[in-house]
Amino acid sequence: MKSESKKRTFSTWIIFGVTVVVVFLLGLLAASIVDRRAEGEFVYKPKASFEPQETRNQVWGINFPREYQSYMKTADTTFRSKYNGSAMIDMLAVDPRLVVLWAGYGFSKDYNQGRGHAYAIKDVVNSLRTGAPKSAEDGPMPSTCWTCKSPDVVRVMSEKGVREYYTGTWASLGHEIVNPIGCADCHDPQSMNLRITRPTLIEAFQRQGKDITKVSHQEMRSLVCAQCHVEYYFDKSDKKSNYLTLPWDGGMTMEAMEAYYDNLGFSDWTHALSKAPMLKAQHPDYELYTMGVHADRGVSCADCHMPYKSEGGQKFTDHHIQSPLNNVANSCQVCHREETAKLIANVFERQDKIIENRDKLEELLVRAHTEAKLAWDKGATEQMMSGALTDIRHAQWRWDYAAASHGASFHAPLETSRVISKGIEKAQEARLKLTRVLNALGVVDEVPYPDIDTKEKAQAYIGLPAEKLKADKNEFLKTMLPQWVEAAKVRESGWKVTYL
Amino acid sequence: MKSESKKRTFSTWIIFGVTVVVVFLLGLLAASIVDRRAEGEFVYKPKASFEPQETRNQVWGINFPREYQSYMKTADTTFRSKYNGSAMIDMLAVDPRLVVLWAGYGFSKDYNQGRGHAYAIKDVVNSLRTGAPKSAEDGPMPSTCWTCKSPDVVRVMSEKGVREYYTGTWASLGHEIVNPIGCADCHDPQSMNLRITRPTLIEAFQRQGKDITKVSHQEMRSLVCAQCHVEYYFDKSDKKSNYLTLPWDGGMTMEAMEAYYDNLGFSDWTHALSKAPMLKAQHPDYELYTMGVHADRGVSCADCHMPYKSEGGQKFTDHHIQSPLNNVANSCQVCHREETAKLIANVFERQDKIIENRDKLEELLVRAHTEAKLAWDKGATEQMMSGALTDIRHAQWRWDYAAASHGASFHAPLETSRVISKGIEKAQEARLKLTRVLNALGVVDEVPYPDIDTKEKAQAYIGLPAEKLKADKNEFLKTMLPQWVEAAKVRESGWKVTYL
Repeated sequence: MKSESKKRTFSTWIIFGVTVVVVFLLGLLAASIVDRRAEGEFVYKPKASFEPQETRNQVWGINFPREYQSYMKTADTTFRSKYNGSAMIDMLAVDPRLVVLWAGYGFSKDYNQGRGHAYAIKDVVNSLRTGAPKSAEDGPMPSTCWTCKSPDVVRVMSEKGVREYYTGTWASLGHEIVNPIGCADCHDPQSMNLRITRPTLIEAFQRQGKDITKVSHQEMRSLVCAQCHVEYYFDKSDKKSNYLTLPWDGGMTMEAMEAYYDNLGFSDWTHALSKAPMLKAQHPDYELYTMGVHADRGVSCADCHMPYKSEGGQKFTDHHIQSPLNNVANSCQVCHREETAKLIANVFERQDKIIENRDKLEELLVRAHTEAKLAWDKGATEQMMSGALTDIRHAQWRWDYAAASHGASFHAPLETSRVISKGIEKAQEARLKLTRVLNALGVVDEVPYPDIDTKEKAQAYIGLPAEKLKADKNEFLKTMLPQWVEAAKVRESGWKVTYL
Repeated sequence: MKSESKKRTFSTWIIFGVTVVVVFLLGLLAASIVDRRAEGEFVYKPKASFEPQETRNQVWGINFPREYQSYMKTADTTFRSKYNGSAMIDMLAVDPRLVVLWAGYGFSKDYNQGRGHAYAIKDVVNSLRTGAPKSAEDGPMPSTCWTCKSPDVVRVMSEKGVREYYTGTWASLGHEIVNPIGCADCHDPQSMNLRITRPTLIEAFQRQGKDITKVSHQEMRSLVCAQCHVEYYFDKSDKKSNYLTLPWDGGMTMEAMEAYYDNLGFSDWTHALSKAPMLKAQHPDYELYTMGVHADRGVSCADCHMPYKSEGGQKFTDHHIQSPLNNVANSCQVCHREETAKLIANVFERQDKIIENRDKLEELLVRAHTEAKLAWDKGATEQMMSGALTDIRHAQWRWDYAAASHGASFHAPLETSRVISKGIEKAQEARLKLTRVLNALGVVDEVPYPDIDTKEKAQAYIGLPAEKLKADKNEFLKTMLPQWVEAAKVRESGWKVTYL
């Protein structure tokens, strides 16, 4: 009996000991939980208050240092260069055929691969496309061209009114729009909730009977991007303003938007060689994204381009907006259990299969423009040319819809490939018609491909005064730009920031 | 002390009771495990032994009832019709343009959508393509045309020798080849291991330095299919045999196989209208499968087309080879956590995006053949035509590579789309050249599209004596076929089956 009682006492002690250890470990766990909460409190406690019109990203950054510091990485071009070549690529030098495709339009002057959001103002000011205005009334571009470049647009729109903002020259707002794309473009300054600040997106959905001010947070994580990453045009029907408008009334497909423009009789410009009434596609990124499998599975833009990140136990959205290929671990690999190298190879493979035919389509379009020019030179009439010119318009629209959309070959590879197939067919159809026109005018041999193997040769071929444009731009940068910067400095120095 | 001791006794009883219950449940579990083992023993215990040359699927089925019974479902055409329309579709009636594309070749006579493996013999015997031989030396087709239709091919090859099997007419082996595709095509009769029985696949890999007799079981689950589901041609270089050969020496891509054929100066036939030296693509299924993401992730043909199944606690491979769309739960949903309707919609969307352009390419090819015919009729010379005819050859190869491959639009959608883009470009290139040739011969207007909106009209357009072919076939089915069936019956009655 006694030894049994001893045994029982012994096992009671063991139970007691185990309990002590477990309770101690629970204590550690509780402490770590409390620790994280404390840090959370610390991070989200505003350090400063600022005025509602505040557009300086660095001021918002006082209260949101992690978001701001990660946003500022969009200025670091070495990240992009890892997979995309050097940070700012002169696309007209890489592919001089683009000069011919855009002959008569701004893009033939200057077209660089886009850099991070932090460069939005700098790059649009430096571009030859925006010209060299000498006064607020001067220059080739309308005020609407600022719309996607800066949170100052939101401020000016609320101060002047939307239609008034869309009225006037680009130069007339140069002193107003100075802070690059940033916090106020997507966030409400009071609640910090995501918000749509650009009327064009709200209006486009409204015309389809959809109210996007009442969608889920996950949808907002794409829609804030869709404020700018879409196809658009300038509605000039009031003969005064250039009202930024999305051609989505019939849908977002290549065909639906083309039908929209065709029905309007709209063209962005008349081609300098072929005289075709052309359309310029403006990065239909959101549109093509909606046609891909990631959108179909509910993945938002931010899920891959701004994935969640942890620092010091604090989860936040990485505001270093970039290619997911620079950040596979936090983007792709959240869902796809494959090695980084394999996933990147899968993306490149998709891109390669599309670029091959896109490249061929470019060549066919250069040929079509060149053949059309020869037909005009030989005395073709409007009537003889009209069928071929419509085909050229439609073929280049297909090419541009696929080529201008950032990441199209990954976002919706099959749709992009489908569009390019149709472009090839139309471009060749144009050339079939032109072959018959040229035959009727006595040209029986194949028209030689123009000598455009450098940007300089291509710009000379279309008669572009490149050197003059550059000289004028330099003058503008020396004289006009400093005045804009100074005016902005004076204005912003009046905005109060109160440290709490 | 006493009440404490009582408490201890009570808790000891509780522990005792819990132990009893747990041990009882363990006993139940053990019993269920033993039960399954017993069933396993029962299933895999052979009921009969048969001779090594045995090719009758129903005899193998005595020992493997689950595999055999599921295989026999390939005879049930209602399954296929669920997504693929009625079981046997006359593709020439659905799409009469095919008649023109194959003018001068067997496929213009008769081309049905394939049915299940159980119909392999029946459908090749009934096809107008195999003609109406009156004797063992008669008819349009060589013995090689049986190669993918029956396990009897394995037997005859081992009896006669491989090259000897490939020598002679199709009719000469009519009495030998009678059992449809089945067990012995893929399984070793002793070990039941998967095996490659068709020399052409082993030889093709051998020429690339690969020994596929030593690959993993998972690879075999695709390679047994690749014995037949590949692009092939008949090598006639010994002037005697039609040696079945895969054109893979330079790779499996569309371009690599085309280069292989071009280098050989090989063509399947000369087109009856355009006189172009044509290539017929023969279902390059395995090739396109290797270029898709499922192959990239190590998914085999059998994983989707013959997924594992459970019956009575026994796991086995479902031998009802069919579209995974008929069996989404056991195929797609093993990996993809999406609803059936969504997954099927995703497949259809891929197919639609490709079929649209494939369809356009067909129209362009009909136009090219028609325009070439007119050029010949107007007196074009070989020299004038040669460039256009090469383009037609290459364009139609691209179309056929994409169109003939079963499931291409799903297995490798982007590659398929890429190939069709290139086909469209080449077809239009041919038409550009033909437009110049026709102009030189005085034809300045567009050549009208032929009136081929029914199979009958299209066959009349290419000068095919359809009614005569059908009458001859009926005669063959009444006279020759019964002799083959009778001879087979006599032979097989000599094969011993011993019940154990």
